[in-house]
Amino acid sequence: MKIICQKNDLLNSVNIVLKAIPSRTTMPILECLIIDAKSGVIKLISNDMELGIETIVKGNILENGIIAINAKVFSEIIRKLPDNEVTIETDSNYKATITCEKANFNISGKASEEFPFLPNIQKDKNITISQFSLKEIIRQTVFSISDNESNKIMTGELFEINEDELKVTSLDGHRISIRNIKLKDNYDNIKVIVPGKTLNEVSKILSGEISDQVNLFFTDKHILFEFDDTVVLSRLIEGEFYKISQMLSNDYETKLTINKKEFLSCIDRATLLIKENEKKPIIINITDNNMELKINSNIGSMNEDIDIKKEGKDILIGFNPRFLIDALKVIDDEEVDIYLFNPKAPCFIKDKEETYIYLILPVNINANIN
Amino acid sequence: MKIICQKNDLLNSVNIVLKAIPSRTTMPILECLIIDAKSGVIKLISNDMELGIETIVKGNILENGIIAINAKVFSEIIRKLPDNEVTIETDSNYKATITCEKANFNISGKASEEFPFLPNIQKDKNITISQFSLKEIIRQTVFSISDNESNKIMTGELFEINEDELKVTSLDGHRISIRNIKLKDNYDNIKVIVPGKTLNEVSKILSGEISDQVNLFFTDKHILFEFDDTVVLSRLIEGEFYKISQMLSNDYETKLTINKKEFLSCIDRATLLIKENEKKPIIINITDNNMELKINSNIGSMNEDIDIKKEGKDILIGFNPRFLIDALKVIDDEEVDIYLFNPKAPCFIKDKEETYIYLILPVNINANIN
Repeated sequence: MKIICQKNDLLNSVNIVLKAIPSRTTMPILECLIIDAKSGVIKLISNDMELGIETIVKGNILENGIIAINAKVFSEIIRKLPDNEVTIETDSNYKATITCEKANFNISGKASEEFPFLPNIQKDKNITISQFSLKEIIRQTVFSISDNESNKIMTGELFEINEDELKVTSLDGHRISIRNIKLKDNYDNIKVIVPGKTLNEVSKILSGEISDQVNLFFTDKHILFEFDDTVVLSRLIEGEFYKISQMLSNDYETKLTINKKEFLSCIDRATLLIKENEKKPIIINITDNNMELKINSNIGSMNEDIDIKKEGKDILIGFNPRFLIDALKVIDDEEVDIYLFNPKAPCFIKDKEETYIYLILPVNINANIN
Repeated sequence: MKIICQKNDLLNSVNIVLKAIPSRTTMPILECLIIDAKSGVIKLISNDMELGIETIVKGNILENGIIAINAKVFSEIIRKLPDNEVTIETDSNYKATITCEKANFNISGKASEEFPFLPNIQKDKNITISQFSLKEIIRQTVFSISDNESNKIMTGELFEINEDELKVTSLDGHRISIRNIKLKDNYDNIKVIVPGKTLNEVSKILSGEISDQVNLFFTDKHILFEFDDTVVLSRLIEGEFYKISQMLSNDYETKLTINKKEFLSCIDRATLLIKENEKKPIIINITDNNMELKINSNIGSMNEDIDIKKEGKDILIGFNPRFLIDALKVIDDEEVDIYLFNPKAPCFIKDKEETYIYLILPVNINANIN
């Protein structure tokens, strides 16, 4: 094999396939990326058995071929080369020579035969959205998946397509995050659970531009993201997602409207009095047009008032401050509406059109009130 | 005590005194900073028993007083307050109330009596230089101190003042770094060893502006840095510094001139083939107007040619690449001169006026040449 690429094109593509290189594995071949220049295009391929990525690099093929090469070493070499043409040449013993200007690297590659190439999947069910929207949806929900592998379903997000609506749901037992968006076309009904890890990695590769599109294809076992010169294939999580519709009540006894930035800064200040792993709730006391936040810890105490608009009853309620911060951080609105029922019922942070819904369970504060 | 300061003034001063708060200590009082508002100015004070810092904060004193307060907690509270006036009030039980806009923090302070306040030192021997110069000198030498506490002398830098010359020297057994600068006035002879840790911390506080001055005062046991509204007092390291004059030979068999950036990038590329803790030398082969760099490791091999200007003999010599990188990084010149004698003698990287001299011992490469 002999190929020539521009350093920056090559580096961009290497950075994409690195997302599916496992940090630890018992199969050494998975630490390799494949450079495939067999059939007219230069393709880089990686696969950690959950997630597989293929991406095309611009460049010239002087001699067809394919090789497996340690991804970490290869990416570091490419990163440090001068900004110029890079030539990669391999011989029959899988020795790879990488040349750029006067720099010459020799490293050992491997045969590609053992590598688990990506399966061909049937491309019939699909939707198209902008890379911007997909990236936003992921950012606004993925924080509330669970990282506890013993409950696999909670480590993923539910993607539901119903005609021209996409609903994405994640939950971890203490909170639920939902994003609803309108699609441009009507599609068949789809309901799949996508691994959170896949969404995190895909979101890093997406351009985030409104004008760039991404196609999502679905099968029983897989989701495939197709965008720019890249294809990302991921296994789905099998099983039935939690039924949450009965938790999404529209009843409330108290509704308040608050400046998001003020609320967030205030909670942020309060949390500095809590050591990591310490479970101290923040106590919120809502009276007419005033919210008082209080926290008490071994380090000290803090209280602060914030102006709010309020409808309905006064209420005293406690929350894990982390959960409030996570939700408020991803909301782009300047003012948010919060709906409360009683001190033992979840609160809802949502907009009028329900493009986003954040449900957060309260903490029992009877023990914490002085 | 009751004082009012602007949040940003207070935060800047707290960040300065934080540099002398020990990360671990058996004396809890050292984790505190002192707010001293006894005598007309507001002073923050910290002391880790090696290094002590005093700095003055702008602000109004409404009630005189002094308190010791946990530095880490205090600094985090101040950092997260809104950009506005901060009021700090203490009562007779050392309870401190920190108020800013609608936020209220209560934390417990301590009596200041146990705190080791900075001693008054005699201010007769001193020099004045710009903060820019001092910061540069530290950056350009402090990387080659030793972090091995069993040889205390090597953890410091020799400061020598001789009439209108300041010479700063650091060494770690494998290399020596020297910076010479001209002072504006003539001073008495001074020769002291300043702890590297002190220099690192002082350098973080210095503004780095040419127009800002710093006064250095010397006693037998202490060095004192006085600049802006801040005083830093440090113990000196006691003992005799190494005699290095006989190592600083001006003889050479080979002199070469090389583009610094090219040389540095090339070594940087080569080192990616070396795992941490692996001791692989970089091999440099100098022939007429060409330098070839080679490295061989378990990961692979690399070689690269660089154009040079050469006087004298050809030479093949090996170095620890880290030592070359450290020295080249802090040199501001575009081209550097390197002087070599033989493969077992140190190399010198220095400018004509010897404002900087970097001596680096070579590595025996007989075992490493293929």
